[in-house]
Amino acid sequence: MRAPHTELPTIAAELLSRLRERRPRVHCITNAVAQTFTANVLLAAGAVPSMTIDAEEVADFVAGADALLINLGTFDAARRAATGIAIETANRAGKPWVLDPVFIDRTARRGAFARGLVAAKPRAIRCNRAEFEALAGAASEGGALARYALDCGAVIGLTGPTDLVTDGARLAAIANGDPMMARITAMGCAASALVATAHAVTDDAWVATAAALLWIGVAGDVAVKTAAGPGSLTVGLLDTLYRLDADTLITHARLT
Amino acid sequence: MRAPHTELPTIAAELLSRLRERRPRVHCITNAVAQTFTANVLLAAGAVPSMTIDAEEVADFVAGADALLINLGTFDAARRAATGIAIETANRAGKPWVLDPVFIDRTARRGAFARGLVAAKPRAIRCNRAEFEALAGAASEGGALARYALDCGAVIGLTGPTDLVTDGARLAAIANGDPMMARITAMGCAASALVATAHAVTDDAWVATAAALLWIGVAGDVAVKTAAGPGSLTVGLLDTLYRLDADTLITHARLT
Amino acid sequence: MRAPHTELPTIAAELLSRLRERRPRVHCITNAVAQTFTANVLLAAGAVPSMTIDAEEVADFVAGADALLINLGTFDAARRAATGIAIETANRAGKPWVLDPVFIDRTARRGAFARGLVAAKPRAIRCNRAEFEALAGAASEGGALARYALDCGAVIGLTGPTDLVTDGARLAAIANGDPMMARITAMGCAASALVATAHAVTDDAWVATAAALLWIGVAGDVAVKTAAGPGSLTVGLLDTLYRLDADTLITHARLT
Repeated sequence: MRAPHTELPTIAAELLSRLRERRPRVHCITNAVAQTFTANVLLAAGAVPSMTIDAEEVADFVAGADALLINLGTFDAARRAATGIAIETANRAGKPWVLDPVFIDRTARRGAFARGLVAAKPRAIRCNRAEFEALAGAASEGGALARYALDCGAVIGLTGPTDLVTDGARLAAIANGDPMMARITAMGCAASALVATAHAVTDDAWVATAAALLWIGVAGDVAVKTAAGPGSLTVGLLDTLYRLDADTLITHARLT
Repeated sequence: MRAPHTELPTIAAELLSRLRERRPRVHCITNAVAQTFTANVLLAAGAVPSMTIDAEEVADFVAGADALLINLGTFDAARRAATGIAIETANRAGKPWVLDPVFIDRTARRGAFARGLVAAKPRAIRCNRAEFEALAGAASEGGALARYALDCGAVIGLTGPTDLVTDGARLAAIANGDPMMARITAMGCAASALVATAHAVTDDAWVATAAALLWIGVAGDVAVKTAAGPGSLTVGLLDTLYRLDADTLITHARLT
Repeated sequence: MRAPHTELPTIAAELLSRLRERRPRVHCITNAVAQTFTANVLLAAGAVPSMTIDAEEVADFVAGADALLINLGTFDAARRAATGIAIETANRAGKPWVLDPVFIDRTARRGAFARGLVAAKPRAIRCNRAEFEALAGAASEGGALARYALDCGAVIGLTGPTDLVTDGARLAAIANGDPMMARITAMGCAASALVATAHAVTDDAWVATAAALLWIGVAGDVAVKTAAGPGSLTVGLLDTLYRLDADTLITHARLT
């Protein structure tokens, strides 16, 4: 594997500038717990979110969007119906979409549904260790990640103490972020929405995924310095994302 | 048009006092992204929100409420069914209701539904430029706003860099508010809920609409001074609304 | 009635330590307005929330959880179906569940549903005065609370200026908490979720209920000291819960 990650902070800064100029529309089919925070994270970064899950409206929203997120948290019949239509609309128009297979380790039914979605070709999959293992039926180490990425043609963004991002050929390891971030609901869901957003401003899915995880990881590192707990961290993270610049990204990136 | 707006800040302060005394109940059929922030904005101002969208329960809640908000974001079959019942209940009891036609510029279906609701006589419609144009089929300038307000018998509250509020005879232009407010999801939705709330404490729909937009615009202007981004602006806005007084309203109002 | 409440702050501190070690999973069927704040309160305290309301998934989530919350806010057909399955799953596995009969004073239908749930044996019921009276058909004074607790075999946690917690034999009266907390949506809902969480770390339902109400009451008292309004109180409450320790609980507890 090549290790081109020394350029990542600069590239991530460029993508963020592009995002703020273009203000892409990102449609999110996401869970009920994550909707508000996800929308606020996208708005702070510079994107324009929409969130309807109604089967009769979702095609119009996806057709007008620049990227799509499918998040399986609090999944239900309405979200299932909307997801099929949304993915078909995105794929037909060649728009990028990203999968977040939330909690698929908790129910076999959701796992099977997620595997069906992978066959519909997301550009990237953002998940944690337990979710990857439920999805791929393999341990979540570097080799298996790369093989799975090649097999399904999607970038894998595995988040944890160190985030791993691979397309099978390239691997980025991002050690940013703080454990306190896991004490804020929907932090991973919002990261996935940022990954989808980054796909709206670059065609390189590996770069998009790594850049977005770097944005939120660095923002978390900066915000945690003055946070007294998860309440003030939430506030600080949104403020930091809103003001995030190249200097901060380059100074704080911890690529290993 | 008359320009009676120099008295607006004082009137807005009086309505806010009345609101805090009476603590009106406001039922909101609003989108999934906006529910929590809207409830917190109403509570900060002094109202008591309820938010069920279930068709079997909504009539009881509207019957016990002093005002009703219908917001079309994340619209779906459940919200559509509840909306019909809620409006019928409100109209039969002579209770005021307010329409926020969110994103009707994005889907023709939602636009058609919104036009049907306008025929059911909301007291006010709070929308942005694109939504007004989709609703009225006309440019969003003063003359068209006034004509539309007269035609449909509702006050139009058009928000943007300057908010315009007209009932066809009177026009208020409110230049309060900061662009950073648009980086917080559901800010417009919460403004519409405040408009509905103000209708619970005055029968003058134009005054109610202008006063509510002044409350939130001034609160935003005050809060943005110490905000480092949209996270701290959200916190500051709720704190400011909770403490908003006549002096602050009169000092900060920018009526043009 | 005995008054063993002088030990409560110490016991509450021990339970909180146990919670942070064990990180119990708590499944919440709760209303759409409360989901995000409830999840953040549980995460701040140290628990791991899940929130699906889908009838096809809820049994898997409850089977993997350590406690269950049923909250009747924004109740609808989906939540009704999920509730039946969730309670049956919990009862069969001997897992504790807690009922929050939100707004049952507003609609007769919801009240009848709540009474059916009480027959299914929650370990505790957290409610306010109006909700208790609608549930029990009795005034919300000490004797009626105790009788109702004995009749239905559940601890009653009645919140208000002073929270009363009784299992029919024991009574705790907790005067912590600040009126400004009522200006934050879902504060009571989050308290109920903490009550469910405490049931995951002790089999004594009275202790669990009193300890959880003490956690959030003390956290509110501490946070309100530096809060400028409900926005900063929300942030401070999450931060304080995250850091809450035995000293703070013992120093601030107001048991009357």
